[in-house]
Amino acid sequence: MSKTVADVMSSDPIVVRPETPLKEAIRILAEKRISGLPVIDDAGKLVGIISETDLMWQETGVTPPAYIMFLDSVIYLQNPGAYERDLHKALGQTVGEVMSKNPVTISPDKSLKEAAKIIQEHKVHRLPVLDSTGKVIGILTRGDIIRAMAAE
Amino acid sequence: MSKTVADVMSSDPIVVRPETPLKEAIRILAEKRISGLPVIDDAGKLVGIISETDLMWQETGVTPPAYIMFLDSVIYLQNPGAYERDLHKALGQTVGEVMSKNPVTISPDKSLKEAAKIIQEHKVHRLPVLDSTGKVIGILTRGDIIRAMAAE
Repeated sequence: MSKTVADVMSSDPIVVRPETPLKEAIRILAEKRISGLPVIDDAGKLVGIISETDLMWQETGVTPPAYIMFLDSVIYLQNPGAYERDLHKALGQTVGEVMSKNPVTISPDKSLKEAAKIIQEHKVHRLPVLDSTGKVIGILTRGDIIRAMAAE
Repeated sequence: MSKTVADVMSSDPIVVRPETPLKEAIRILAEKRISGLPVIDDAGKLVGIISETDLMWQETGVTPPAYIMFLDSVIYLQNPGAYERDLHKALGQTVGEVMSKNPVTISPDKSLKEAAKIIQEHKVHRLPVLDSTGKVIGILTRGDIIRAMAAE
């Protein structure tokens, strides 16, 4: 029988809250050597994921988009919306300001193959695993799939 | 003084060869819990990187692109070139068949901020660090940058 998400996921992952200070999230990621954390609200509902990618902006800062002046107008040569989003991630002080919202999730009974497909299609590195009530019961990473491949 | 790549990178990373069997690369990634390996040729020159992303195709397989027949022609609705590339990654048996070629690299004297910018711009997860002769002397990952942030 082929493996399921439940066979391979890490159970009971460390989670953070939107109001968790960013420094605390960075410390957890660094100490546990993990690459992302599910973010849950007071009701235990998944509201986002905070990952290494979201935190890189804190190191890089952001460069305002290039623009040209034409008559009295400012014409941006890049999307100023993307700049504002990145600026938020660069200056944020709490998990809620920096996290990625609406993460792609999976249920524990799905096959590993399906999980790998979702990971590739959405270009993500981890999927929070939700039970039928919407509770986060695990996290499945690319590394978990590699280790399952190695064990075969 | 701000940190450089050399301060934070992992020195003397494990490397593999294009002719290394894929199973061996998967075993190394799984056992060492790392997400990518530089690939070097006989002369010690960097020729690629093999990462979790390249290996996911071995788990997912690939679906041929959708097409429609029109008169006597096959019209692909997706890029058949991308399909062929992914198929190669799904069926390959050696590192050379599956690796990503021409990886983005960095030199050890660059600042961590520059490294983080390159990582974000190119949407990669690690940069091989090359000395002035082109030899791979280290690897810098997103995780290394997070740990440097946590140590500040």
